[in-house]
Formats: sequence, C-alpha cells, structure tokens
Amino acid sequence: MREIKGFTTIEEMEADAARLKEIACELCAETWEDRKTSQQPQCKFGEEGICCRICSMGPCRVTPKAPRGICGADAHAIAGRHYLRMAAAGSAAHSDHGREIAHVLHKASRDGSYQVKDEGRLLALAAEWGVETVDRDIYDVAHEVADIGLMEYGKPFGTLKFLERATEERQKLWAAEGIAPRAIDREVATSLHMTNMGNTSDAEVLVRQSLRVGMADGWGGSMMGTEFTDILFGTPTARTTQGNLGVLEADQVNIIVHGHDPAFSEMVVVAAETKEMIDYAKSKGAAGINIAGLCCTANEATMRHGVRMAGNFLQQENAMLTGAVEMICVDVQCIFPALSRLADCFHTKFVTTSPICRIPGSIYVEFKTETAFEQARGLVEMAIDNYENRKRDKVFIPTHTQDAVVGYPCDQIIRELDGVTNSHLEDRGSYRPAIDAIRSGVLRGAVAMVGCNNPKVRPDYSHIQIMKELMENDILVVASGCAAQAATKAGLLRLDAKELCGDGLKRVCTLVGIPPVLHMGACVDISRMMLLVTGIAKDWGVDVTRLPIVGCAPEWMSEKAVAIANYVVATGIDTYLGIEPQVKGSTQMMELITEGTRKITGAGYIINKDPHALVESIIAGIEKKRGLLGI
Amino acid sequence: MREIKGFTTIEEMEADAARLKEIACELCAETWEDRKTSQQPQCKFGEEGICCRICSMGPCRVTPKAPRGICGADAHAIAGRHYLRMAAAGSAAHSDHGREIAHVLHKASRDGSYQVKDEGRLLALAAEWGVETVDRDIYDVAHEVADIGLMEYGKPFGTLKFLERATEERQKLWAAEGIAPRAIDREVATSLHMTNMGNTSDAEVLVRQSLRVGMADGWGGSMMGTEFTDILFGTPTARTTQGNLGVLEADQVNIIVHGHDPAFSEMVVVAAETKEMIDYAKSKGAAGINIAGLCCTANEATMRHGVRMAGNFLQQENAMLTGAVEMICVDVQCIFPALSRLADCFHTKFVTTSPICRIPGSIYVEFKTETAFEQARGLVEMAIDNYENRKRDKVFIPTHTQDAVVGYPCDQIIRELDGVTNSHLEDRGSYRPAIDAIRSGVLRGAVAMVGCNNPKVRPDYSHIQIMKELMENDILVVASGCAAQAATKAGLLRLDAKELCGDGLKRVCTLVGIPPVLHMGACVDISRMMLLVTGIAKDWGVDVTRLPIVGCAPEWMSEKAVAIANYVVATGIDTYLGIEPQVKGSTQMMELITEGTRKITGAGYIINKDPHALVESIIAGIEKKRGLLGI
Repeated sequence: MREIKGFTTIEEMEADAARLKEIACELCAETWEDRKTSQQPQCKFGEEGICCRICSMGPCRVTPKAPRGICGADAHAIAGRHYLRMAAAGSAAHSDHGREIAHVLHKASRDGSYQVKDEGRLLALAAEWGVETVDRDIYDVAHEVADIGLMEYGKPFGTLKFLERATEERQKLWAAEGIAPRAIDREVATSLHMTNMGNTSDAEVLVRQSLRVGMADGWGGSMMGTEFTDILFGTPTARTTQGNLGVLEADQVNIIVHGHDPAFSEMVVVAAETKEMIDYAKSKGAAGINIAGLCCTANEATMRHGVRMAGNFLQQENAMLTGAVEMICVDVQCIFPALSRLADCFHTKFVTTSPICRIPGSIYVEFKTETAFEQARGLVEMAIDNYENRKRDKVFIPTHTQDAVVGYPCDQIIRELDGVTNSHLEDRGSYRPAIDAIRSGVLRGAVAMVGCNNPKVRPDYSHIQIMKELMENDILVVASGCAAQAATKAGLLRLDAKELCGDGLKRVCTLVGIPPVLHMGACVDISRMMLLVTGIAKDWGVDVTRLPIVGCAPEWMSEKAVAIANYVVATGIDTYLGIEPQVKGSTQMMELITEGTRKITGAGYIINKDPHALVESIIAGIEKKRGLLGI
Repeated sequence: MREIKGFTTIEEMEADAARLKEIACELCAETWEDRKTSQQPQCKFGEEGICCRICSMGPCRVTPKAPRGICGADAHAIAGRHYLRMAAAGSAAHSDHGREIAHVLHKASRDGSYQVKDEGRLLALAAEWGVETVDRDIYDVAHEVADIGLMEYGKPFGTLKFLERATEERQKLWAAEGIAPRAIDREVATSLHMTNMGNTSDAEVLVRQSLRVGMADGWGGSMMGTEFTDILFGTPTARTTQGNLGVLEADQVNIIVHGHDPAFSEMVVVAAETKEMIDYAKSKGAAGINIAGLCCTANEATMRHGVRMAGNFLQQENAMLTGAVEMICVDVQCIFPALSRLADCFHTKFVTTSPICRIPGSIYVEFKTETAFEQARGLVEMAIDNYENRKRDKVFIPTHTQDAVVGYPCDQIIRELDGVTNSHLEDRGSYRPAIDAIRSGVLRGAVAMVGCNNPKVRPDYSHIQIMKELMENDILVVASGCAAQAATKAGLLRLDAKELCGDGLKRVCTLVGIPPVLHMGACVDISRMMLLVTGIAKDWGVDVTRLPIVGCAPEWMSEKAVAIANYVVATGIDTYLGIEPQVKGSTQMMELITEGTRKITGAGYIINKDPHALVESIIAGIEKKRGLLGI
C-alpha cells in the first residue's frame, strides 16, 4: 500500500487517542474503551439474534435443548423479528429527522430564522410534485411542498412519491414483489405489528418487510430530509475544509455541534458568525469563535459552511478530553449519554436541544423553529462566558489535521463531469463521462462507503484501509457519515490523495479535478447515493443491479445502518458489511440476507470482518459485474 | 371463598388440561408447558430490563462491574428504552388492527361483503367529527368517516380527535404535561426514534412518551377499532353463549376462529351459517358446522353472533389437542407459531389469513376485503372436506363448559341502568344508578379485569381468584380479552354467579339483571372501559382519578398490555399488575411506573404476583379513594 508523508496514518490517530485516554485516566474519567472492556464477554444469544424479549412470558433463548421460545417461535422467527425491528427503528430515526426538517420548511418565512436558500431546488421539487409555482410567493410554494412531504409520512393510500425517481425496472420489481413502501410511518408501525407476539414468524416475510421499511427510509424519510435540507440551507457545492481534532483552536472559544439534524446547528453557526458574538468573544480574551462538528451534524455543516470536522462517532469523548471545548451542543442520534458524566470532569457545557434526545445531566434548551436564532445566540454567549473556565494547563489538542474537499451531491458531480465534456459533441448534464470511464476500465467501478464506527473492530481502520485499497485498484469512492469523516482524517478528501490511487483513478481525479473519495454528506444523504446510482443506470441504460457499483459499511453500529443496508439492497446494490448483523443463530436468516434477497432484488449482503478480505470480495464482485456487462 | 356446585373450578380446568397434555405426550407433540420447562432458567438481565440490544456495539448488560453500556447508557436508560419500545409495539399492533377495520369501512358497500350494520353508531360518529349526513347516502358518510379515521394515523398536525371525549380535566392535564398524542403512527415512530442509539436516556422522559404512545392506542387506534367494528358488524348487545373447550362438538365440523381482527372471522361465521354450507356438511356425515372462537376473535364473534368461546391464550394448543378441530383459522396477534407444528400431529388445517401474521407451515389464504365472503366460504368448505379425516378414536373433548351472558358495551350498560331508573324522577341514559350504588356503598367500586395469560403464573388462576374475591367484596367487575374468557370458563358471566357475590353486588345484579362480571369485549375494547369510566366521571362530576374504579391485569404477557397499562394510567386509573414489567433492574424505572406517573397523571402501577395480596391492595386502593370522596 502506498504511504505518502503528510497523510495521517491510523497509527498516528491512535497515538493521539492514546494520549487523550491518558488524560481520561488521570481524571478517573471513563471512556468507551473502559466500558467495552467491562462489557466483555458479550452475550452470545444477543449477538446471534436468538434471544427474544418481545413478550413478558420471556425472555426466551434458543439452545440445542430449547430450540423454540415458549410461544413456539424458533431461531429464524426470533432473529428475523429482531432484524426487522432494527430496520424499523433505523427507518423511524432517519425519517423522523426528515420530518423535523419538513416541519421547519413548513414554518420557513422571509423574516424568520429559516428561509428558502435554494429556490431552484424548491421549484424543481414543486414541479415534480405538481405544485403550482407560477405567480406564487415562493414561501407559499415552500409550505405546500412541505405539507405534501409531511403527508408522505401518513397518507392512508398509495405508495411513496419518490419511488417514481427510480429506474422503471426497479419500480416494476418493487411493485411485483410487494415491497414498495406505503406511508413511511405506516411501514414502521406495520413492522412492529408483524413482530409483535403471535404475529409473523416466517423469516422470509420478515426480511421482505425489512426491505420495505428500509425503503421507507431511503426512498422516503431520508430522501425528504436531504431535499428539504438543501432547500432550506442550500444544496452543497464543493468547498475546502479541514478535519480531525486538530481543528480545535487553543485561543478561541470552541463550540462543537454534534448529532444529525442540522436545523439548530445551522443557527449556532450563523449566530457565531455575527460581529456581536465575535466581539463578545474577543472581549473575553478569545481570538474568536471556532465552531467544529462531530458526526453527521459535522457533515451537514461542513458541506454548506465549510465548518471544520472534529471527528466521527468514536471520537466524541476524545473531543471533550482535549479540555479545550467550551460547549458541545447536540441534536439527535449517536450521542453518547456518557458525554454527560464526562462533561462533569471538564468545564465543557453539554447542551441537549431536542425532545427526541434527552440526556440526564445535560443543559436542556428545547429548540423551537420560531426562536431558533435567539436560542442559538444565547448558547453561543454561554459558551463564550465559559471560555474563562477553561483549565489551560490541562488542554491537549492533537496537532493532526487534514485538508479536505467536501460537498459532492449529485448536482455537483454532474457539474464536475460537465467540466470534462466536449460541449460540441456530447450531452451535458449527464453521468456519461463517468460511465465512459467505467466502460473503458479507467475506473473499474465505484463503492459507496458508509456507516458508523464500532468497537467490535479497530476504529476507523477498516474504513481507511478499505478506501485506500479501493483507490489503489482504480475504484472511485463516494462516502458519507462516519466513513466520510474517517476518509477526511486520513487525508483522502485531499485533491492530492490521487497520489495514493491506481493510474486510472488518478487520471480521472486529475482530469475532473476531484479527490478520489467524494464526500456526499451525512448518513441521511445516502439517499443521494441512490439517486446517483439511479442516474448512472438511466444514462447507461441498464438496471442498477448490473452496474459495477456497490455499497460498503465496514464498521456499522446503528439501527439506522440496518435500514440503510435494506434500502441499498432493495435498490439492487450489493452491500459489503464488516460487522455481522445479529442473525447468525438462524441459518435461514443468514441465507436470506446473503442470498435470499438476491432472488427478490438482485442484491444481498457479503459479510467479512477482515477489511482486506472484504476488499478482495468487493473487487471480485465488481469484476463479476463488469464481466457480465462485457466490459 | 364461596364455592357453589356447577361453577367449573380451576382444578377441574387443570384436570382437563392435564388429560389433553397426556394426549400430546402420546403423540410426542410439544406444548407450551414443555417449552416453558426447557427455557428455564430465564435470563435475569432480560427479565430485569437491563440488557440492551439497540445497536450492534452490544449486546450490553448492566452488572455491578459494568454499570453502563458501551455508549454510556445506564440501567435506567436501558430499562426505560425497552419499556417504551414495548409500549410502542403494543400500540402499533392494536392500532394497526384498528386501521385494518377502517380500511374495511372505507370499502364497505351495499352489495359487497361488508355493510354498515349500525347506522346509528355511524351517524353519531359522523356528527362528532362534523361530517355532513343530511341527504347523503349512508355509504358516502361511511367512507368519509373512514377516511377521517385513517388520517388520525398520519395527520401532520394536531392531536387525536378522540381525546375530546375525555373529561375536561384530563384534556387539560394531557396538554399541560405534553402527553397528548399526535398522529398514532407518529407517536410510534417517535418512540422508536427516541430509543434509537444515542437518543433519549432520561427515564422520566421515556416514561412520559410511553404514556403518550399508549394513549395513541387507547384514545386512538383501539378506540377507532372498536367504533368501526361496531359500525360494520353491529354494536354488541347482551346475549347468552357458552365457553370452554366443551363447546366443541363431537358430531359437527368444528372450525375455530382465532386472533383479534374480526373482519375475516365475521365472514367465516356468515359463510358457515349459509344453508349451502350446512347442507354440504350434512352431506359429509356431520350434524352441522360449529364455529368456536379463541382469544379476542372469540370475544368479538361472541358479542355479535353468540359464537361460543373455546378458550383463551394458553388454551390454543389444547383446542387442537382435542383432535376434534377441522380447521383453525387465524388472523393476527397472539397466535402461537407452535400451532403449525402441532397441526402436523392432527388432521387440523391451520390457516393464516393476514400478511401481518405469516407462519411457516400454515395454509395461507390472504384475506381481501373485496372477496372476503367467497374466501371464507372456500375455507368452510375445506374444513367440511376435512371432517372425514378426523381420527374419531383419538378425540377427547373435555365436558366442562359454562353458560355466559356477554356483550356489555357502554350503550348496553346504560340500557340496563335505564331499566332500574324511575323515568318520572331521574335522568335516563346516564350512569347515575351505578354512581348511586357506589356512593351508597352497595357497590364499593369497580375493577376492569384485562390482560392475557402468562406461564409465569398459574394460568387463569389469578384471573379467576381475583374476580371471585372482588365479587365477594361487592366490587363489580368489567372484563375483556383473556380475562373475560377466564371468567367465562369459571361461570362468572352467568346471571346466577351473583350467588358468589357479597350482598351488595348480589342485590345490584338481581335488580339490574346482570352478571357480576360484565363482558365488554376484546382487548381493543378496553377503549370502551375508558369511555365507561369517563362517562361515570362526567355524570359524577369528579375527575376520573378520584373514582373508586381501577384496572387489573394479573396475567399480562403481550406488548399490547404495556400500551394498555400506559393509557389506563394516563387516563388516571390505577393499574394492578400480577406480572412485573421488565424494568426491575432500574430503581428509577420502578419508582417512575409505580409513583412517578402519579405526579403526572394521578395514577400508577401496583405490582404483586400473589393474587390474594393483589386483591387486598385493590380493596385498600378503592377504600382509600372512597375515603377521599367522603363516601
């Protein structure tokens, strides 16, 4: 593997983490490493999905002497039900995030905290949904679009509108297989009903519903979240930023925004940029206000404001351990409740803002659309006031940081491709140049790198190792969520990361002027990836499942990842996992998720904990698809 | 305790069950007793609610050496999240049942399988919801009402319409405490989101959402289910029937309907009553067709057709073990997947009919509203054809059966009370006579007996023992679900069961002409009980929580019971449980569900596994409330 100086290695990252861990030990502060150790050994029944807690006759566990629970449910039913519930909860979480943004759009106004920033995007969606736009106030259009979006969560009849964006083949397949989702929340509720005591025990039926409720996320709630976020806060464009804990500033007020829903963090960013607040910070002896992001809130804010990214999921405690953070302001999802106890060891204010994510010991400021800016300003002020409480002798900010180019939604990718198109000879506004590169073998294919961190594997190692190997093999990477942040920390979003690539990918990067890993956003933005692949399939004229494009989640952890994996597979895209879904105790479920879904959607999971072996199977999978295409 | 000959004792029931268990042993057929034994010991972490499987970093378990999961969630967060998820899944199940019925009403037509049977009920609901009824076809009204009902599942704004049926005090309290539910499915999705990894870890917040999602069931989906079922199939009136396995007939084709959603079983009943089918049965040597019910489908069918009840939850395998059942036709919820394997030992056809409840090895006939009657006729025919396969030498039908008077929805109770009202002096159509009886002490109070069976306690013993003790203590019982069936089997729904009562209750039963246990229907019909208590509170002029009326679920098992318990407590009614909710590993959760909710809603749980001790605390609770009312 090519290693070039200047790109932070996983060992360097781990050295930083080890130093921060020492600080934690000095303070007797507990971190995830301690809790992971104390949780060993983990329950095998749970890990294999054969423990059932769905009614109070139980818990029941499948063993050779007890192959069925009290009701008669066997390993397949038990593992299948748990799997579907994970998909449903993941879909509910992502989609509820989308709903919150839809409610913000519903209340957007010319003179309120929230405006329509991307009118073009709004008008395009209005046209798609048949909303009248001529001679109408843009806010009337916005509110009608928001209301239609909100009805997608609860309409009593019909399937989701966004399904019509898919290829015709997919739409027909989803209808024929009975997995086209109805209203988003209905699929969630149906999933809970099916898995409730004394309902479905047929593993295949449970897997089919997992696909359906997953699609309610990817082609429903998540896609809505992405669309409405772009309308409200602007569709991202490529911009430069930086990543890793080194983005924290020793002489500034550091405020970290953390979570997933960007509605409130946007206001924190805006408030921190006001002259009033900057002057106030200076009056308190700080050189300025430094907003940094964690997890997907970071991805959202960096794509639209260039806000720098402090890190991903397993780095959240490390950010606090620097001792340099005046405030961590969180919204929803993936927030360690542990931050609350850890904050007690530091001057850091730990602020929760959503009724969905209430954590004991935090300062709770319930974000309201109507007063968001004032609330955000209040918090920025609180953080500034807290600056003087920083114990300067206890601050340790790791120096590693990497430049990054972020912000490649579909529109941006097409714009970049247009840049290499001969406008006299070729169609513009298409994926044709990328298709040509894949056809010719300059690129062998593309991989969507997604998902979380998980202490079951060496954190970030799988992400980075896999991406580097793919790059060397002329496979383009698009990334989102914690995977995108891992790439950032390793420098893979730098334009000169092409030096780590095989010749083909390097040539493409040079020609188009892109890094070899394209940052597509947060985990809700995996919906963008579905549209990207759909666009390529349409321009190519083949079904999605035939493209040499796959998904990979080597360190997934959240139920959201189960929802995502299901909609990716439903969309016809093979998905490579580095963490086993908790169904190993059921041969039927293992067969269904790896092979069974292929008979339904043409795609399935390939699971391997070893990142190198996973890459080998990815490449084999891509080459097989290339072979079938005759390229 | 008074024992009078002719009332089946628990010991007699157990002797029948033991004989059937012998048959199972002879056939090497497994039953729940075997599976319960093989599942011992059950996992303490699960039982106490301190095992977390919400993300794939886990499973995590709370122990003294590991007080927190990897994310930092402690016992309170872990137990609280599991508890909320149980409530959410229960609410989803009940409410989805209500939705199915709403969809049937949406498709009802004068010449289809489903008609409007209770126009008065429809018109009343139309008036309540502001639907125009003058000069309109009743089916247009029905469809508009159904559509409004369906929107209650997914409307983007506002709270549930049925909340307005509550007392003003309750409505104000729910609004002030922020627990008034929005759209039904939204509360389910919100609950999953809140409990998803990295979201809410505050136990009180989780309990509050449990109340809210519970109310989305009791004052939402369940209430809708009850209303629409009454409109479609007729509001029940008091009628006589019989219960226990003795209702199976040795010389007839026995078809058992089992589950909860009555839409399809109604058609089976109707089809079995046609001359064509009866003649066909006779042509095959049977004396006729005997439809019997299990679980709540039995409760639904008995209240409207007098269909006899073969038994409750833990009796489902026993029904098959008689060897006399040609077909068990199930819809949704509480169906043992074990029935499939057990059916292999008999000639019994095991038929599933709902996409919500798919069981491997069953015959699947997916029920469609449009073709329901034809499908039902086909199944009845299949059962008749199967009659000749019955192995007559292996049939054992226990002889115990009891007469019962069933069917006391609120309207019927008021009708009965009107019968003892002096129309010259008193208001009619009110609960005044019942209130007078409670005030005067002739009745000390009332208890709603609800819930399932659970092998963690002696099946039916708690139900029957508690009801008998309450009756002796002049406490009126209203019952639904498996509790109502336990009462049926013990003969407590007989008019002469008043002989088992204290003098006061006996006098009331004689005067009004009712049994001391009033059968109010299925488990969705606990919504009727909420309206009953609300009606009494309104007529009395005091808040619900001050009434000497409580709920009791001594053998609960399903997540639906957790949803129910939450809406009962939210309605201000103390709830006595004989099975511990799985939260014992969290002191905070134990405090919250027993005392904490009192500060929010005025009610909470009282938990005791010993039925006699539970009755003592019920009586103490009722007497305390009487004392506070000064009566």
